[in-house]
Amino acid sequence: MLFITNDQNAMFYECNFSCDNGIFFKSNEQSFFITDSRYTLEAKEKIKNKNIEVITSSDLITDLIKLAKGIDNIIFDPSQISLESYNKISQTLNLKAESNFHQKLRIIKNENEIKMIKKSQELNKKAFKNFANFLSNNKINGKNELFLNFKAREFLSNKGKYNLSFDPIVAINHNAAKPHALPSKDKIKEGDILLFDAGIKYKRYCSDMTRTAIYDGNIKFTKKQKMPKKIQKIYDIVLKAQELAIKKARSGMKAKEIDLIARDYISNAGYGKFFTHSTGHGIGLDIHELPIISYKSETIIEDGMIFSIEPGIYLDNEIGIRIEDLVVMKNGKAEIL
Amino acid sequence: MLFITNDQNAMFYECNFSCDNGIFFKSNEQSFFITDSRYTLEAKEKIKNKNIEVITSSDLITDLIKLAKGIDNIIFDPSQISLESYNKISQTLNLKAESNFHQKLRIIKNENEIKMIKKSQELNKKAFKNFANFLSNNKINGKNELFLNFKAREFLSNKGKYNLSFDPIVAINHNAAKPHALPSKDKIKEGDILLFDAGIKYKRYCSDMTRTAIYDGNIKFTKKQKMPKKIQKIYDIVLKAQELAIKKARSGMKAKEIDLIARDYISNAGYGKFFTHSTGHGIGLDIHELPIISYKSETIIEDGMIFSIEPGIYLDNEIGIRIEDLVVMKNGKAEIL
Repeated sequence: MLFITNDQNAMFYECNFSCDNGIFFKSNEQSFFITDSRYTLEAKEKIKNKNIEVITSSDLITDLIKLAKGIDNIIFDPSQISLESYNKISQTLNLKAESNFHQKLRIIKNENEIKMIKKSQELNKKAFKNFANFLSNNKINGKNELFLNFKAREFLSNKGKYNLSFDPIVAINHNAAKPHALPSKDKIKEGDILLFDAGIKYKRYCSDMTRTAIYDGNIKFTKKQKMPKKIQKIYDIVLKAQELAIKKARSGMKAKEIDLIARDYISNAGYGKFFTHSTGHGIGLDIHELPIISYKSETIIEDGMIFSIEPGIYLDNEIGIRIEDLVVMKNGKAEIL
Repeated sequence: MLFITNDQNAMFYECNFSCDNGIFFKSNEQSFFITDSRYTLEAKEKIKNKNIEVITSSDLITDLIKLAKGIDNIIFDPSQISLESYNKISQTLNLKAESNFHQKLRIIKNENEIKMIKKSQELNKKAFKNFANFLSNNKINGKNELFLNFKAREFLSNKGKYNLSFDPIVAINHNAAKPHALPSKDKIKEGDILLFDAGIKYKRYCSDMTRTAIYDGNIKFTKKQKMPKKIQKIYDIVLKAQELAIKKARSGMKAKEIDLIARDYISNAGYGKFFTHSTGHGIGLDIHELPIISYKSETIIEDGMIFSIEPGIYLDNEIGIRIEDLVVMKNGKAEIL
């Protein structure tokens, strides 16, 4: 399969290097990494594959056109190219559009990738523990979400050692009910419910986990929680839905069947309309990859796929509960990473 | 001028609100902010302009087409729209492409914007001071760039209170010679030269400043520095070039004339080929806006423009020196913010 891409994670997957001004062209025998002089030195150091030539260019698209002229069936992603760039290229080359083609290539993870994502999630879990210890051992009563978010980043990044896979969510009570909670000045106090959704990158591979916990002077990001009765009821529904989806997921199923395991459980408990998103998403170099675990997804689940299982219930102006783990499909079943 | 945009800063400029799934359509009397149900509540709260209607949509492009059908001369930015989205829209609408049209609209800052950017840079300067105090009052000998970068973010963000306008650069000695220095494990020791390039956002307006300083047990991010003789020579050339460009910049000049003031000075001192980038860039809601202060830019400088003046000299594997301030053009001259 021949293709061009300027997506940094796709480049990295193909070349072991990426930068913010590069084009990777996968051709027949010889492939090309085209970039400007700021990056060629490092590109040549990092790209060990003899079949990839590094091209120094002051006009990437013009050089791409020279290299690709006369070659048929080159695929590109129309959702990742601007109209402006496409107009230049398409004057000479006749490309084939295929949305998301490179994520499709990466949908099954190899052994090394599984190891990287597992390690990433292990480091993430350790950060959850360290953050919980901080919250339990310091006087955080009255500290606002902005501060808690800042401290979360300290533990997640291990003081700058790791990049984060996305902006972490640290949301108290009703703020957790907003699907895209930005940190506010709302202050935490004993008895509050805290939703913590975060991940890091390890050698560029993402992790992702969510826990919802009660702050009773201490905090534990464990699945077992002791909350006020009314909230505990909702918490237990989400937890059971999450555990059921993990337990019953099988290779060979359609992704939508996994979504429906969680969704049906929540619907039968009377909260269906408060579970407002998909059950999960693939993860790898991108934080959101294929497969999408939604009620519409016809993707057949296979061994080697890695995705999140993260049902939630959100009551506006009241509370948001979400519990998320990553799983890898192995020997036909879902194993928690 | 009628236009559509999905750029978050352009949206914010027009509406006082933005989100990651929205289209703003500036039409004749009535304009429209189209977004999905996750954001409409907040959009309606924030958008006070009676001439902008918030539209809740589950398919933004389809709804845009309904609203814009039959209206002529709608401008869009071909560098900001994907081919995929354009293909959908252009089946029905006949749009006019104009690259960067919205940054062109924002090139002259109004009084309120000047105030915001000034405040942003004041907070940024305070963070530079606090970071310098930290570096001077703690045993940082042997700490690596990753750690220094992490601590810089603590002071810049004021423990999470402010967003950063870009990933700060904290680079020691030869690492500062790389135009896009990523933090390394290289450790700081007495006698090292540290380049610090950073900015924050205040009410979404960006700041940006660079200082290069010697670490002699203490650090001061002042322009006056006492460095080893060979480095001091280069430092003084950069400083003089920067000061000259600020002193001689005038409204009515072409942007390239300002670039050449700094560039000619450095060239005449024999370091022309080591000044590898433009002298400056506009700044506002985006960290890089118009005008570009490059040797090619024909833009006429006017009162109300805000841009950086940041010449540098980079000797590979040896040292990088850059000094940067922001200026606003006022009464025909450049005033440092």
